[in-house]
Amino acid sequence: MASPEQAAPASFTAPDPGFEARCRDSFSRQPAMHLIGASIAALRPGFCEVRLPHRLEVTQQHGFVHGGVLGMIADSAAGYAAYSLFPADSTVLTVEYKLNLMAPADVDELRARGQVTRSGRTLTVVAMDVIGIKAGREVHCATGIATLICIQGRPDTGR
Amino acid sequence: MASPEQAAPASFTAPDPGFEARCRDSFSRQPAMHLIGASIAALRPGFCEVRLPHRLEVTQQHGFVHGGVLGMIADSAAGYAAYSLFPADSTVLTVEYKLNLMAPADVDELRARGQVTRSGRTLTVVAMDVIGIKAGREVHCATGIATLICIQGRPDTGR
Amino acid sequence: MASPEQAAPASFTAPDPGFEARCRDSFSRQPAMHLIGASIAALRPGFCEVRLPHRLEVTQQHGFVHGGVLGMIADSAAGYAAYSLFPADSTVLTVEYKLNLMAPADVDELRARGQVTRSGRTLTVVAMDVIGIKAGREVHCATGIATLICIQGRPDTGR
Amino acid sequence: MASPEQAAPASFTAPDPGFEARCRDSFSRQPAMHLIGASIAALRPGFCEVRLPHRLEVTQQHGFVHGGVLGMIADSAAGYAAYSLFPADSTVLTVEYKLNLMAPADVDELRARGQVTRSGRTLTVVAMDVIGIKAGREVHCATGIATLICIQGRPDTGR
Repeated sequence: MASPEQAAPASFTAPDPGFEARCRDSFSRQPAMHLIGASIAALRPGFCEVRLPHRLEVTQQHGFVHGGVLGMIADSAAGYAAYSLFPADSTVLTVEYKLNLMAPADVDELRARGQVTRSGRTLTVVAMDVIGIKAGREVHCATGIATLICIQGRPDTGR
Repeated sequence: MASPEQAAPASFTAPDPGFEARCRDSFSRQPAMHLIGASIAALRPGFCEVRLPHRLEVTQQHGFVHGGVLGMIADSAAGYAAYSLFPADSTVLTVEYKLNLMAPADVDELRARGQVTRSGRTLTVVAMDVIGIKAGREVHCATGIATLICIQGRPDTGR
Repeated sequence: MASPEQAAPASFTAPDPGFEARCRDSFSRQPAMHLIGASIAALRPGFCEVRLPHRLEVTQQHGFVHGGVLGMIADSAAGYAAYSLFPADSTVLTVEYKLNLMAPADVDELRARGQVTRSGRTLTVVAMDVIGIKAGREVHCATGIATLICIQGRPDTGR
Repeated sequence: MASPEQAAPASFTAPDPGFEARCRDSFSRQPAMHLIGASIAALRPGFCEVRLPHRLEVTQQHGFVHGGVLGMIADSAAGYAAYSLFPADSTVLTVEYKLNLMAPADVDELRARGQVTRSGRTLTVVAMDVIGIKAGREVHCATGIATLICIQGRPDTGR
C-alpha cells in the first residue's frame, strides 16, 4: 500500500474518450470472468477494480478463495487499468505478473485493484492489490506487479 | 526450459511414503480446480503436472485460455510439487509466484508442470512451466517461479 | 506509487527499541554498500531509504546507473525496512525480490525506499521503489516487491 | 534447473554473425561490472555466463556475497544472453527481473548463467541461475527470470 514518503500517483488522462465502454465491453467478452463470478466495480483512467463475491466454487482445500483465483482477478484488474490508457485501435496482453499472497482469503468478498504506475507507449507497469472484506473490515490479502504490452492496430475482438 | 549447461535436477525422495494419496486427496478437495476442469496428470516426489483441456468457459476476450487460468494451474502444479516433499502432518501455502506469459494459449489442452528447484525445511522454490498442446505439437506458453511454505503440525483439511 | 483508493499504510511499531542502532550497525558491516557508495538516508519502523550518489563506477554501457545496482540498493532498503521490525536477537535474509525498471537512471542521485506491506512472524513483504533525482526533479526509476525471512536466535554478525 | 520432463531448450541462431564481439564490447563498457570484478566466462547464441570471484568488497554483513550482487551478475548474464540474438543495430534494456535466493553465497566464485527461454521480436524471456563454487563443489545459490526489450535502430554506445 501507499507509503507516506511516496508522492501521490500521477494522474492519468485516457487518450481514447471511449475508454470506459471499450474496457467494459472487453471484460464482458471474457468467459473466464463469468465462470468465477467477477465483475468490474470501478474504472477510471489508469485504475480498475474487479469484484468477486465469495462462492464455494472458487475455493481451495482450506475453504479460502484459491490463490490462483486471486491472481486471475488481480491480472484482470491490472489489464483493464492499463487498457484504459491505450488508444482505441489496440489490444492488451499480459507480459508477466508477480503476486505475493499475504493473508488467507477467508472473506465475504474480494476486490482486486490495478493502478498504473508507469504508462509507456509499448509497456505499462501496474501495481496490483487484492483486498478482502470480512464482516465489513478490510484485509490486505495480496500485493503484486504486472507488466502489460499494448498491441497497436489490432482490435480486441479476437480471432 | 532446461539449459544444456545446467546440471540435471536433484533427485528428490519424499519423506512421507503416503505422499501421493495425500496430494491427490488434497487436490480433490479444491473446488476451484473442479470449476475450471483441471486434474493431476502426473505426480512424483518434487514434480506435479496439472492438465486442463480447452473449454470456452476458461477463455478471455481473444478466445485463448485466460492468463489468470494459466496462473491457477501453474500455482497448483507448483503447490503439489512442493507438498509431495512435505511431512504427513503439514499443509502448504503459496508465498508468492511470478509468471511470464510467452505465447497465446490457443491450444487443445494445457499442461502445467511444477518441478522443485530447492526443498527447504520452511521454504520451497518451484520452477513452473505451462505447455500448450495444439494438434499434437507443444508450445511453451508460460514460465515462472513459485515460493511455497510448509506449515507443520497443521492438517490440510481446512477449518 | 500510492493509489488514492488504497488505505494508508499500517503504522508499524518496532518491538526492539534499539532497532535503529541495530540496523545502522548491520548496514555499516556491508562492504558491498561501501563499494558502491550507498548510505542509509532515513530509517523508521517499517521503512528505510538508501541513498546512492551518481558515480561513473556504478554505470552500465549507456552511462546510466546499472539496473543491477538499482536492485542492490532496493534489496538493501527492503532488508532494513523489514529488519527494523524484527526482534533484537535475529537476522534477516532476502527470500526473493522482483524489480521493474521503468526509466533510465540518468540521474544525479538515487533513493531506494523500502516500505513494509505485511509484517509476519516468519515472512515480511516489502514494497520497493527507486526514485532518481535529476536537477531537483524526481523520476520513478524502478518499482518492486521483496520477501524477507526473519531468522530468530541468530545474531547478525556473521560467521 | 532442468526437469527431465521438459524438452531440451530450443537451439538458437544469432541473426548477427558479429554477435560475440558486439556483446563482449558492450560488457567491457560497463563500469559497474569492472567495479565488482565480473567477466564474461562463456557466450553463445542465447546463452551467457558471467563469472565473479569472491572478494571481500562484494559481501554483506554475514560475509557472503551480497544478494544484490547476485542480482547484478544474473541481470548481466540475462542481458547478454538476450542481446546475443538481437540485430546488430540495436541495444538491450532490462524490463524486469525476479530472483529467488536459495543458498548463502559462501563461495570461492560465482557463475551467473542466462539462457533464453523465448526470443521475440520485441521481448525476450531469460532463465537465470547463479551457481556458487566452493572447494570444487557446485551450490545452486539463486534462480530467476528476466524480461528484456530490444530497442532497434539505437546503438549500444550510449549518449
